[in-house]
Amino acid sequence: MILGKVIGSVWSTKKDESLVGSKFLIVRQLDLEFKELGSFTIAVDSVGAGDGEIVLIATGSSARQTTITKNKPVDAVVMAIVDKLDIHKRPEAAGAKN
Amino acid sequence: MILGKVIGSVWSTKKDESLVGSKFLIVRQLDLEFKELGSFTIAVDSVGAGDGEIVLIATGSSARQTTITKNKPVDAVVMAIVDKLDIHKRPEAAGAKN
Amino acid sequence: MILGKVIGSVWSTKKDESLVGSKFLIVRQLDLEFKELGSFTIAVDSVGAGDGEIVLIATGSSARQTTITKNKPVDAVVMAIVDKLDIHKRPEAAGAKN
Amino acid sequence: MILGKVIGSVWSTKKDESLVGSKFLIVRQLDLEFKELGSFTIAVDSVGAGDGEIVLIATGSSARQTTITKNKPVDAVVMAIVDKLDIHKRPEAAGAKN
Amino acid sequence: MILGKVIGSVWSTKKDESLVGSKFLIVRQLDLEFKELGSFTIAVDSVGAGDGEIVLIATGSSARQTTITKNKPVDAVVMAIVDKLDIHKRPEAAGAKN
Repeated sequence: MILGKVIGSVWSTKKDESLVGSKFLIVRQLDLEFKELGSFTIAVDSVGAGDGEIVLIATGSSARQTTITKNKPVDAVVMAIVDKLDIHKRPEAAGAKN
Repeated sequence: MILGKVIGSVWSTKKDESLVGSKFLIVRQLDLEFKELGSFTIAVDSVGAGDGEIVLIATGSSARQTTITKNKPVDAVVMAIVDKLDIHKRPEAAGAKN
Repeated sequence: MILGKVIGSVWSTKKDESLVGSKFLIVRQLDLEFKELGSFTIAVDSVGAGDGEIVLIATGSSARQTTITKNKPVDAVVMAIVDKLDIHKRPEAAGAKN
Repeated sequence: MILGKVIGSVWSTKKDESLVGSKFLIVRQLDLEFKELGSFTIAVDSVGAGDGEIVLIATGSSARQTTITKNKPVDAVVMAIVDKLDIHKRPEAAGAKN
Repeated sequence: MILGKVIGSVWSTKKDESLVGSKFLIVRQLDLEFKELGSFTIAVDSVGAGDGEIVLIATGSSARQTTITKNKPVDAVVMAIVDKLDIHKRPEAAGAKN
């Protein structure tokens, strides 16, 4: 899954009829320090994610495995809102095999 | 989904027979300021998108979830025409976790 | 779909038995001026594409949606031969929203 | 499959209901000398992988082929823990065709 | 499909139970002159590919279309061993449309 932040949404009147009522979020990809990266994706919301929230996105056919996206032409879905990342600190140098 | 702009189309006489009648659009990828990026994709139209229109593209197996593309060998479909992007402005610095 | 040019083929005797008789084409990716890019892919032919021809490739599960590739372990198929690209000229600057 | 190292996990209360109980691991991609690369992915654990372990990740629809991930909106799964890599040494120069 | 060379294998005791007996090969990506590129993938063997052999890899759901990989959480399979590449020489300059 991709880590991202909701930064906006897309308005679309003319779309595949199965998508009426779907909310398209603009999600900026993040690194593990929540710094925004250059890339973004547009994903359908399935969890009520609001502006500025940190989320996970599932892509590909996996994006159609929610009640909201089933059988629809969407390739990215917001399927989780992130509370926090738990990154383990270790004394050994980064990259060392443990 | 990918954000893009329709910049042309592909003419093809000899193709998989299931694709007779499908319209192949050339879509240039855009950033969030609608500036054209270097990459492009070729996608089947499912919403009547015209030249110069801003659109969304779904890729992979999701591209086959429209009436027009079902069971066809296409991996990208234009499934929405974009009216506008609504990008939220926030006073806090970009990249800050809220 | 990817735009490419057929530049050769792959000979393989030992392969998944479902692939006996399939023709593997080497396809160099092209930009919109038909200039060859660095990347290439190997795709099964489903339309009788010959050496030097400009083609479209569908990837992923969509590559298995032809009679020739159905249920086979192939992730790229040549599904159309390109006659020409029709790229619209516009007076306004590239990148401008219309 | 992608080679990676588990470096943490994601906490998420609000998520697709099918994902309750799933553990989301943060996995840093590795090269063949186990050096950490810049990219990372978030993957559901299906093998009890612990912090710092070297793992394999399957992506896309293949990520849903475990008992734990079946029919769920996840596009990456940790499906193996790596004991070691066995890289063959050869006298001939790297890159030479044998 | 991706062109690559088998350079080793992965040992894994703890893995999804459907994968017991599967052989995970480390495959370095090649260019058309068989020069090794930086990227590599880990793929299940379905054709008895040995160390140093030049192979084709199918990825995504297509990787599950062999008897050995069916319904398993693997996203890359070696499905052909390459005998040779047949790249056509042409008098005209590279990149020219024919």
